[in-house]
Amino acid sequence: MPDSQPQVPSPTDEGTPQTQFPPGIAWIDGRFVPMSEAKIPVLDWGFLRSDATYDVVHVWKRRFFRLDAHVERFLASVAKLRLSLPFDRAGLEALLHETVARSGLEDAYVEMICTRGHSPTFSRDPRDAVNRFVAFAIPFGWIANPEQRRRGLHLIVASVPRIPAASVDPTVKNYHWLDLVNGMFEAYERGGESVVLKDLEGFLTEGPGFNLFAVKDGVAHTPDAGVLEGITRRTALELCSELGIASAVAPLAMETLTGAEEAFVTSTAGGIVPVGSVDGQALPAAPGPVTQRLSELYWHKHADPTWATPVRGLSASAT
Amino acid sequence: MPDSQPQVPSPTDEGTPQTQFPPGIAWIDGRFVPMSEAKIPVLDWGFLRSDATYDVVHVWKRRFFRLDAHVERFLASVAKLRLSLPFDRAGLEALLHETVARSGLEDAYVEMICTRGHSPTFSRDPRDAVNRFVAFAIPFGWIANPEQRRRGLHLIVASVPRIPAASVDPTVKNYHWLDLVNGMFEAYERGGESVVLKDLEGFLTEGPGFNLFAVKDGVAHTPDAGVLEGITRRTALELCSELGIASAVAPLAMETLTGAEEAFVTSTAGGIVPVGSVDGQALPAAPGPVTQRLSELYWHKHADPTWATPVRGLSASAT
Repeated sequence: MPDSQPQVPSPTDEGTPQTQFPPGIAWIDGRFVPMSEAKIPVLDWGFLRSDATYDVVHVWKRRFFRLDAHVERFLASVAKLRLSLPFDRAGLEALLHETVARSGLEDAYVEMICTRGHSPTFSRDPRDAVNRFVAFAIPFGWIANPEQRRRGLHLIVASVPRIPAASVDPTVKNYHWLDLVNGMFEAYERGGESVVLKDLEGFLTEGPGFNLFAVKDGVAHTPDAGVLEGITRRTALELCSELGIASAVAPLAMETLTGAEEAFVTSTAGGIVPVGSVDGQALPAAPGPVTQRLSELYWHKHADPTWATPVRGLSASAT
Repeated sequence: MPDSQPQVPSPTDEGTPQTQFPPGIAWIDGRFVPMSEAKIPVLDWGFLRSDATYDVVHVWKRRFFRLDAHVERFLASVAKLRLSLPFDRAGLEALLHETVARSGLEDAYVEMICTRGHSPTFSRDPRDAVNRFVAFAIPFGWIANPEQRRRGLHLIVASVPRIPAASVDPTVKNYHWLDLVNGMFEAYERGGESVVLKDLEGFLTEGPGFNLFAVKDGVAHTPDAGVLEGITRRTALELCSELGIASAVAPLAMETLTGAEEAFVTSTAGGIVPVGSVDGQALPAAPGPVTQRLSELYWHKHADPTWATPVRGLSASAT
């Protein structure tokens, strides 16, 4: 065979993904499967157009945390994108319980996804598509490792601006993350561990999977717009109220963050996590007293029946 | 079982996707499979973060059209996203030839994709991921049906702005399409068939899978920025030059389009397609003389060895 007609790489060639999969269970296309078999068609517009929405709820010590809030936001996102689910709210909740129970995981990261699917007639019209629902439960994951949670994340404020809300509604939880991923690479190059993006006007927005708070003059500030309205963000604001800590939801200037007494980020994947430095400059306290009080109350609430819902069937499934 | 604990939907319940798949062949994770088996893991960040790039080249009458240009752009996009492929350029081209040959399709839509993949250690760091390459060949598809290609597409200019280039580089072909999909729904509601988005300054950009040209005072205008630098757009500009038609690559104002003698869109999925109306107002000619001349030469070039590359092994495979 001449040089101009090289061989197709064989399945055993270097570069063929030999990726591993975490423990866990997924529900997809009408059945429960292990994570290694949780796959969507390449032709799904949830992939080829990122035309999808999702939500993530966590389970801690066999209890969902704020399941109602996550399910409500997910159903609202599905409606805003003109998607539909194959079942009602009760059916969705039953499926999430069953997915976690089958996983046997006592601390879990539970994702629910609705994609546009694809058109059985191969048209390009999203109205022709058969929507797809996927859910999975994998071990609880953290946006920060134990050391970072102890001494605070080193944050970089990136030069790439967050996709504006006018183009993609950030209150519909979505997978449009290329700006955030680009920002992550910039952060690593500048010696940081994670990233926050500004909006086009220069106000701070959010990071990959988390909201941002800066505590200045005793007030916990967080952006009002251009961000996902995170459930952990909402929880932090409610806990501020319970603890008598003042909060402000308004455009967040860079100066408020760099001049803060302390700062933290909020995420379903880890709760309330201190920020140690911004662009290489250490903050006065990490974790600061507000961050510590909020974090303690946040984890305490995981046993409070107001926000904690035992996973049905988990004790029987788990060993 | 009480009402508060509904049954999980069974696999046979209404809503389980019974989607059909087109003929064709995909290369994924080291093997060739039919389209019904072409699936990526749900955990692939190409899906969960839309952290991926792609390109589409077409085959017409057993010949690739401008394969070099598509492969070059794809390799540049892969590098810009700091992804890597499991083979070199020659290996990529060999794989595309083989995929089409195995599909047996004489007219094909051929997509190559590189995703971030996921981290075998389940970290959130994109540098830890094992990238994934996918390619598939399915029957050639059109952005417009035969009637639309004859009398011109009814275009709507949507109110949602295109994601700005500062946030996501549009010259890296990507799947960040929620703004375009939202615009498509707006177009359908306003009686249109497809959509073009403006940028944040109000200049016209592009539509879902195509670039836009407006011919005014005999000059073919197309936007210079905020758009994918389409290979069919480049081809149209080169054919303008060959035919002695003046062209301008510059910010494109709405008034240029609404005041145009004729307009057309360009896409690998259909070539040069006339625009019949904009926001319900018919253009003077559809297809206009410039559109017709360009389209005729465009299809003529599909037999010219300068741009046409016979698919190796296709005649043997096809019946």
